[in-house]
Amino acid sequence: MSIKLYDLVGKDPTRPFSPHCWKVAMALAHKGLEFESVPTSFTRIKHVENGASPLIPVLSDRGKIVWDSFAIALYLEDRYPDRRTLFGGPAGVATSRFIERWSLVTLHPFLASAALMDIHDHLAPEDQEYFRKSREARFNKKLEEVPVGREAKVVAFRASLEPLRGMLGFQPFIGGESPLFCDYIVFGAFQWVRVVSPFRFLDEADPVGIWLQRCLDLHGGIARQVPAAA
Amino acid sequence: MSIKLYDLVGKDPTRPFSPHCWKVAMALAHKGLEFESVPTSFTRIKHVENGASPLIPVLSDRGKIVWDSFAIALYLEDRYPDRRTLFGGPAGVATSRFIERWSLVTLHPFLASAALMDIHDHLAPEDQEYFRKSREARFNKKLEEVPVGREAKVVAFRASLEPLRGMLGFQPFIGGESPLFCDYIVFGAFQWVRVVSPFRFLDEADPVGIWLQRCLDLHGGIARQVPAAA
Repeated sequence: MSIKLYDLVGKDPTRPFSPHCWKVAMALAHKGLEFESVPTSFTRIKHVENGASPLIPVLSDRGKIVWDSFAIALYLEDRYPDRRTLFGGPAGVATSRFIERWSLVTLHPFLASAALMDIHDHLAPEDQEYFRKSREARFNKKLEEVPVGREAKVVAFRASLEPLRGMLGFQPFIGGESPLFCDYIVFGAFQWVRVVSPFRFLDEADPVGIWLQRCLDLHGGIARQVPAAA
Repeated sequence: MSIKLYDLVGKDPTRPFSPHCWKVAMALAHKGLEFESVPTSFTRIKHVENGASPLIPVLSDRGKIVWDSFAIALYLEDRYPDRRTLFGGPAGVATSRFIERWSLVTLHPFLASAALMDIHDHLAPEDQEYFRKSREARFNKKLEEVPVGREAKVVAFRASLEPLRGMLGFQPFIGGESPLFCDYIVFGAFQWVRVVSPFRFLDEADPVGIWLQRCLDLHGGIARQVPAAA
């Protein structure tokens, strides 16, 4: 296979869970590009392509190495212009950047803290040690304390999705009638917690949840092939 | 003049202040279309074009009547395709819808409440009566009580601008290297309070404030021609 995606996994190599890696997997599927997902654990990232990047996703396309999910999407758009567009032109690139920041600021902090122990439990033992040390330093708390109160805090989280929810009254995808990379940006965050955590982040009747199901159906159900955490 | 924009004003007809009307004024200027701004007070809206809409902006283009700022922008893009694009294609339309909802949900509630008495004071006496009655019903409070505590609440408001601020580390406008309608969506909200209120909503060094100045410079400084409230 000529395209490789170094994909973050825990103890089960068939359950990649990084939000940023999922953005790239969906972007590759969107372009109709076959790729090999290379299961990579936290403590193996430093060995990927001779330490090309301290973070994954890392993409290798016939020896061309690209990292950072947004940079990879831009690379794919540029390298495979004849395939289905990920951005719909420069305006779509620019506004996707806004949506990326919105997702990072609005979704990621709650998801990361609410699912922290679930992520820990998803990891192989050698990664759990690294994870505990780095996250306890980041949150300045015992790992176990971070998700405390998530049942109450999820109410504010759901409210914070209102821009997405309101928009879904006009169109089925953030990209319009069909999905674009901006959909995968937000989808990646939800897929992350779907794979690691049984916690119910969304109400079933929530239009955001319905959009999420729509994303899970895309590209032959590539993202649904990893069952939700139980 | 063949294009008329019914533009919300208070007692001073040279100081239009509606966020939604400003989106349209900027969109018209962006397209290089000359237009006549028709100063319209709250209590005169019902007489605009034989009661075409309960809300303004209303646009009249050689007898074609369009209302709702987003619908007007779409109309202009469709009607004047050879002029500078407002959306950069369908992806830009779709993602602008997300940005519209984000602005309405994130910016408008605080701005509307923090500037409520300033808006009231900006109005002509007959409009003040209507305004007090409708807004006291909406907020379920005396008008004077609504902005109380804005000096403390502005901290959270500024924090809520983080997606915009983060994006501005990558590009000068939401639309990318140059502005698009999505910039005017957000700009309209800030211009609204700039025209009516002396309250300092943004820190001077905030990248969002710097972007705002950039927007005020656009199109011959059309928005700057209305001086800030003092």
